[in-house]
Amino acid sequence: MTTAVLFTATDHAHMARALRLAERGLYTTRPNPAVGCVLAHGGETVGEGWHERAGEAHAEVHALAAAGERARGATAYVTLEPCATHGRTPPCVDALIAAGVARVVVACEDRMQGEGEGLSRLRAAGIQVDVGLMSAAARDLNRGFFSRIERGRPWLRIKLGTTLDGRTALADGRSKWITGAEARADVMRWRARSSALLTGSGTVRADDPSLTVRWEIPEAGDAPQPAFVPPLRVVLDNGLATPAGSRLLDGSVPTLFIHAPDARNAAHFAQVDRVAVAENDGRLDLQAAMAELARRGCNEVQVETGATLAGAFIAAGLCDELLLYVAPRLLGHQARGLVNLPALAALDDAAHWHWHDVRTVGGDLRLLLRPPG
Amino acid sequence: MTTAVLFTATDHAHMARALRLAERGLYTTRPNPAVGCVLAHGGETVGEGWHERAGEAHAEVHALAAAGERARGATAYVTLEPCATHGRTPPCVDALIAAGVARVVVACEDRMQGEGEGLSRLRAAGIQVDVGLMSAAARDLNRGFFSRIERGRPWLRIKLGTTLDGRTALADGRSKWITGAEARADVMRWRARSSALLTGSGTVRADDPSLTVRWEIPEAGDAPQPAFVPPLRVVLDNGLATPAGSRLLDGSVPTLFIHAPDARNAAHFAQVDRVAVAENDGRLDLQAAMAELARRGCNEVQVETGATLAGAFIAAGLCDELLLYVAPRLLGHQARGLVNLPALAALDDAAHWHWHDVRTVGGDLRLLLRPPG
Repeated sequence: MTTAVLFTATDHAHMARALRLAERGLYTTRPNPAVGCVLAHGGETVGEGWHERAGEAHAEVHALAAAGERARGATAYVTLEPCATHGRTPPCVDALIAAGVARVVVACEDRMQGEGEGLSRLRAAGIQVDVGLMSAAARDLNRGFFSRIERGRPWLRIKLGTTLDGRTALADGRSKWITGAEARADVMRWRARSSALLTGSGTVRADDPSLTVRWEIPEAGDAPQPAFVPPLRVVLDNGLATPAGSRLLDGSVPTLFIHAPDARNAAHFAQVDRVAVAENDGRLDLQAAMAELARRGCNEVQVETGATLAGAFIAAGLCDELLLYVAPRLLGHQARGLVNLPALAALDDAAHWHWHDVRTVGGDLRLLLRPPG
Repeated sequence: MTTAVLFTATDHAHMARALRLAERGLYTTRPNPAVGCVLAHGGETVGEGWHERAGEAHAEVHALAAAGERARGATAYVTLEPCATHGRTPPCVDALIAAGVARVVVACEDRMQGEGEGLSRLRAAGIQVDVGLMSAAARDLNRGFFSRIERGRPWLRIKLGTTLDGRTALADGRSKWITGAEARADVMRWRARSSALLTGSGTVRADDPSLTVRWEIPEAGDAPQPAFVPPLRVVLDNGLATPAGSRLLDGSVPTLFIHAPDARNAAHFAQVDRVAVAENDGRLDLQAAMAELARRGCNEVQVETGATLAGAFIAAGLCDELLLYVAPRLLGHQARGLVNLPALAALDDAAHWHWHDVRTVGGDLRLLLRPPG
């Protein structure tokens, strides 16, 4: 980070707009981050752009094209440090220099680029560079990308539907539907922004989920359905025991089975990818599974599974976000519980999660929490 | 009800004020309802009053005294139909007529008075009477009073503290504290407005609660502690098995033990009231217990107990309000559940409760729900 900068209200307004532009790429840029860019002279916007798909033009290039000659002397507001290297597209740093922008305001740095090479090159070209405006929002927008780059594992979100009394299904497992249609439609948005949707072999056998993004549920206002990159489907299946005919084996979208090293390889897995990770005490090493997904470019992983696997991710400290839909119903003590966790020695051992967002979705309550610490 | 009346914005403003005045009596008027009164000429308020304690002056009398001669020709806004009979104080109807008010606006009728005798007498005196302004809010304010008068049973609120996964205690019963200090202070407010606080003998043996109102927890702004009438403490104790030395036997505030007809009567119950109700299948008849509390003038009853008795009240259809404090913690499947209920044959049998209020209280979430139907 540079020394502290005092940003103006105009700076904030332009960066807020750039963040809204970046959000438009949330369902399509993977594995790239979502980035937005605004070019302005004072309060007047002269160009806007956002990154839409990996391999295509970056946000800065779109904004520069929109501004044309008016980019000269402008300030560029970019939600992420501009790239300095040739990837599938030329470096945005060069484009900004060539266009003659006078100042670049960056929300947050991109550590994938090492020691701020892009920012140094801009400064060397005589451009004023100010970093850190609305950085928390910008990092949150790409929390999966930053997690993969900085921690070597995806951002892991566990989605669960529950009643007021923490029950997810009747004693025999029946759970369709605990929450309402609006909550299920909302889940589709979270799926669409995920690089991967993960479940366990127990859930596959019990529910035969398809784990795809389905927008068919009508939304308020009949807005056009957003484009999205289908998330990778991931199944933790130690022994590759998922039965033939399961939807997750249908090859309709990219699917990865993570299994134990000694799993037999049945013919009906032909249409899916498979990768082995180590076992600990007969359970797949969840850290290793997450590292494998990061290597495959996964930013956000959404877990949709039962109490056992959800609890295992939480107990392993791998849950970054709990997405809880609470239906205003009671199922009682004989119904199935939310998460299986080791028994605690004391109440104080149950740490406090952080409320991140609380709202109603249709007739249900949606809680988004981040873990303790 | 009279025919539909179109109330003005000025009418609404005065009645809203009268409701706020009424709220000041929420902790002290029992078994009377909380009532507020505003006297006004057009937009100008000339007198205000509220009922503070049973046996003392009613809201209208206070407002008339404040207005003096200016009551003549004024409109009186009263949150509940003025009384027409001599109770412990003279009828307010006569006072309003004598003061020469021109119009009386009433939020809701008081069926305890029969067929609107108060309203008829006002009209017979040439006073314009309009009924129904903000009646829902006025009824909600005194929901316990209306429940007792109209249904012959108190309004029953079940208060529970829980985790995100619907757990109330560790497996061994330890539960201090699931929720935070702010939530516990908030509970004290709900206790203070209750006519009775009810628990079961199991909770008494496990936790030895005092079930009193304690304001000692500092509140924001160090506001003076409100006055309140100590709620009756009620224990459902079939066999009068509560051990000597329990706090609920200390006689510090009025306490009632409800027991089975064949319970032995031990000497250590000398400082508390006792009453027998019938049993069904070895359990106290909850309907009969509620009817008994209504006979004793209880408006709102707050249940603070464990999963078994809470579930029994819910299963019996006696719960009017669920007050749920949710701590952002997880205890896992081995911890104690929220409510014991009969197993359901189908998910659709778990009806939807209604969200009445959702807010954060300190670090916890507070949910207020009303039952299905």
